[in-house]
Amino acid sequence: MAEEQPVILITNDDGITAPGIKALVDAVKDLGRVVVVAPDSPQSGMGHAITIGQPLRLNKVAVFDGVESWQCSGTPVDCVKLARDKVLHRKPDICLSGINHGANHSINIIYSGTMSAAMEAAIEGIPSAGFSLLDFRFDADFTLAGQVARTIAQQMLADKMPKHLLLNVNIPVRFTEYKGIKICRQAYAKWEEQFEHRVDPRGKDYYWMTGKFKNMDKSDDTDVQALADGYASVVPVKFDFTDTEVKDWLEKKWEHI
Amino acid sequence: MAEEQPVILITNDDGITAPGIKALVDAVKDLGRVVVVAPDSPQSGMGHAITIGQPLRLNKVAVFDGVESWQCSGTPVDCVKLARDKVLHRKPDICLSGINHGANHSINIIYSGTMSAAMEAAIEGIPSAGFSLLDFRFDADFTLAGQVARTIAQQMLADKMPKHLLLNVNIPVRFTEYKGIKICRQAYAKWEEQFEHRVDPRGKDYYWMTGKFKNMDKSDDTDVQALADGYASVVPVKFDFTDTEVKDWLEKKWEHI
Repeated sequence: MAEEQPVILITNDDGITAPGIKALVDAVKDLGRVVVVAPDSPQSGMGHAITIGQPLRLNKVAVFDGVESWQCSGTPVDCVKLARDKVLHRKPDICLSGINHGANHSINIIYSGTMSAAMEAAIEGIPSAGFSLLDFRFDADFTLAGQVARTIAQQMLADKMPKHLLLNVNIPVRFTEYKGIKICRQAYAKWEEQFEHRVDPRGKDYYWMTGKFKNMDKSDDTDVQALADGYASVVPVKFDFTDTEVKDWLEKKWEHI
Repeated sequence: MAEEQPVILITNDDGITAPGIKALVDAVKDLGRVVVVAPDSPQSGMGHAITIGQPLRLNKVAVFDGVESWQCSGTPVDCVKLARDKVLHRKPDICLSGINHGANHSINIIYSGTMSAAMEAAIEGIPSAGFSLLDFRFDADFTLAGQVARTIAQQMLADKMPKHLLLNVNIPVRFTEYKGIKICRQAYAKWEEQFEHRVDPRGKDYYWMTGKFKNMDKSDDTDVQALADGYASVVPVKFDFTDTEVKDWLEKKWEHI
């Protein structure tokens, strides 16, 4: 018998026991058959890392009431790859990642395991979205984020989506100021790192990464601005990274090298 | 006294003792003051991972004759961040990453620590290039790759480059068929993963990632095609990942959600 319900793959980077992924499961579990394949430990900052030098473990667990779920020893990207090959044995209809504890707007997309998992699914031809709440605390309130995730998942299932669709969704914290969903472009911003130097009990140097976020992009159509204005920001993302302007320029400039 | 020579930061993802990084250092060390900050162990497949949950070690080592070099316990991206903040205390003039043992063309850019290190530098406003040889063996012949890297580094230093320049350079293996440098766009390609299932001595399942590379892009201006034709491929890369076409479409389609 053919499966009638859409299959929704859910993953994250904070690990399968994080409150954010539970909020996402709860928000969409009546929209289809939800299957969770998520890391067994926190994987924040893993970017698009994959595990090639060691084998992976994948174990069925009972974490969410009535929802099939698996924990994996690898990265968020590993989870998506394994989910397709060893759990679902097919493409899910959509893939949702998160809800991340903390923002992934602007340049943060490249460091984010949450977004890399969604990107891996999109590369596979699975319409995908990553969700991040602008509150990194373990006990953050995911009520609004869950509602936004549900609205977007419903639209992704209702409309015919481009098969490589990838959405970077960030959700502001305060309900009272919430203005709705806004389609944006990625702000040009970066982290200005400073490493804090310490000395260990054996007298050896070590460093902790710290940093300040700096938005250099003052135009009003960016995700950073939308969030400041009280919107949930939605940035459609592509994974052809070719800079066509620089390509045209170099083709002339370096014609004879 | 102002520094007259350009400062060239070199890193990689195969680790500071890999033959590929030695080939890169040797190829460019007379073009400026070369400083190496590279991982102390192999970091292939780390993508844009950063180390946030644990501290980093950074130690001066004597690996390359007459070239200042440091090994770092973190990822390739960590190396670039630490190099700027704790080793150079300024921006280098250019950053070169590699030479990677193995291809990083097309979609492989997102899994590649080599390219992520170069991208981190480009985000910082340092013109950067990552170099990869189409031979993953430890004892690969880096002669041609070194020559290509030298030519491109010379051009990057001679011309006024966009400050966020990022080049993904892949080099074919055979000298006899080598046709020169070609500016390209990123091919649409992907890995079709299959995980090999095994059982450990305690009877528990584990999986090794394997996969077949599949190029779905048959046009003749891609990096994959250039390499097949005997060129070294150069793809200019950007890190604004906004898909403006999908953005325009969604702005209308989702106007009322």
